[in-house]
Amino acid sequence: MERHHFEGDLQALKKRLLEMGALVEQRVHQAISALMERQPRAAEEVAQGDQEVNNLQIEIDDRCLKLLALQGPLASDLRLITAAMKINADLERIGDQAVNIAETALRVMVQPPLRPVLDLHRMAELAQKMTRDSLDAFVRRDSALATAVLAQDDEVDLLKDQSFRVLLTYMMADPGTIERALGLILVARNLERIADHATNIAEDVIFVVEGKDVRHHHEERK
Amino acid sequence: MERHHFEGDLQALKKRLLEMGALVEQRVHQAISALMERQPRAAEEVAQGDQEVNNLQIEIDDRCLKLLALQGPLASDLRLITAAMKINADLERIGDQAVNIAETALRVMVQPPLRPVLDLHRMAELAQKMTRDSLDAFVRRDSALATAVLAQDDEVDLLKDQSFRVLLTYMMADPGTIERALGLILVARNLERIADHATNIAEDVIFVVEGKDVRHHHEERK
Repeated sequence: MERHHFEGDLQALKKRLLEMGALVEQRVHQAISALMERQPRAAEEVAQGDQEVNNLQIEIDDRCLKLLALQGPLASDLRLITAAMKINADLERIGDQAVNIAETALRVMVQPPLRPVLDLHRMAELAQKMTRDSLDAFVRRDSALATAVLAQDDEVDLLKDQSFRVLLTYMMADPGTIERALGLILVARNLERIADHATNIAEDVIFVVEGKDVRHHHEERK
Repeated sequence: MERHHFEGDLQALKKRLLEMGALVEQRVHQAISALMERQPRAAEEVAQGDQEVNNLQIEIDDRCLKLLALQGPLASDLRLITAAMKINADLERIGDQAVNIAETALRVMVQPPLRPVLDLHRMAELAQKMTRDSLDAFVRRDSALATAVLAQDDEVDLLKDQSFRVLLTYMMADPGTIERALGLILVARNLERIADHATNIAEDVIFVVEGKDVRHHHEERK
């Protein structure tokens, strides 16, 4: 296969990864909106509809294996294609988190609302932005943008700690809120994990672009 | 490079993956023991000592990239090597969970013990066994063993649900237990995630051995 075709296939791979990213981001958004606006049908839809994400993951993995099987990809191509496989796995797991959030939403929304849902909104926005930015960084080979994603992870962790503290206070003050507050704590954890996956993607991007391994730069914060 | 050398390098790669598996398993074990036997120094050690896992991950990834760069690996080799990279990432994240458990242990053990720690013990044993079995299945190309790992994941989920219910009852009955019980709920979640990673590994093994994609066979249970 000529280099020309190979480049075309790489472009197609990147395009599919972006579509995968847009899909899981949309599902996270829908799960959080369903939780906050108390829409059981929207939550049901996310909880039930993981098939499209799963099929897309398998298709993208298959594209990667086919590209690896070609004669003579350069070392930089190998880094790019294996990074694409890892990013694909992280995106699929972001999709799993959307399902988890939707399932918790369905349990939480049968009870009266608790106030600190606002911080979750901010966390969700950040986690989605990190996912989007890390993928853009991959496609544009933009290590500066990827580095910016790593910094945002710390902000998500701070917001999560704040939500935890507020929700703990609620539970202590009124045991009647324990189940709901626990649900929201689990959602905060899900959002933290989405941000972790985006961080993994950003680290892969920096490795692809700079050939430098930045994993484990701030593990202790997890 | 001759096929003979290639096989030797593949064997060395498998050996290092097994060592990585043994290392993270030992760290999970130490974190859970520290929690249950209330040993702050053992917990500190796990919380601080992630460097060895991280270095090993980078070394294994490097071996994989070098193997992929060789002329003419077979399609089955590509599946094996890319699976090794994914398994490596799952093992590293199991190591992260050990750190999370150790950190929670340090917070929980300053307060009097709560009873339902026993289920966590059983969950931890199962999660560790699943990790060990999934890696053995990889090295021996044993898809029956990998399939057995998938079944055990359901048992871990059941135990987690049980622990949740018991801990929720504690919290409702006595708000003084909320902080501790919440810590144990987070540990149960960490163990569930370890079992999820072992499940990912087992699915990769079945893909390598049978060329069949079994991912997403029971996503809805996550």
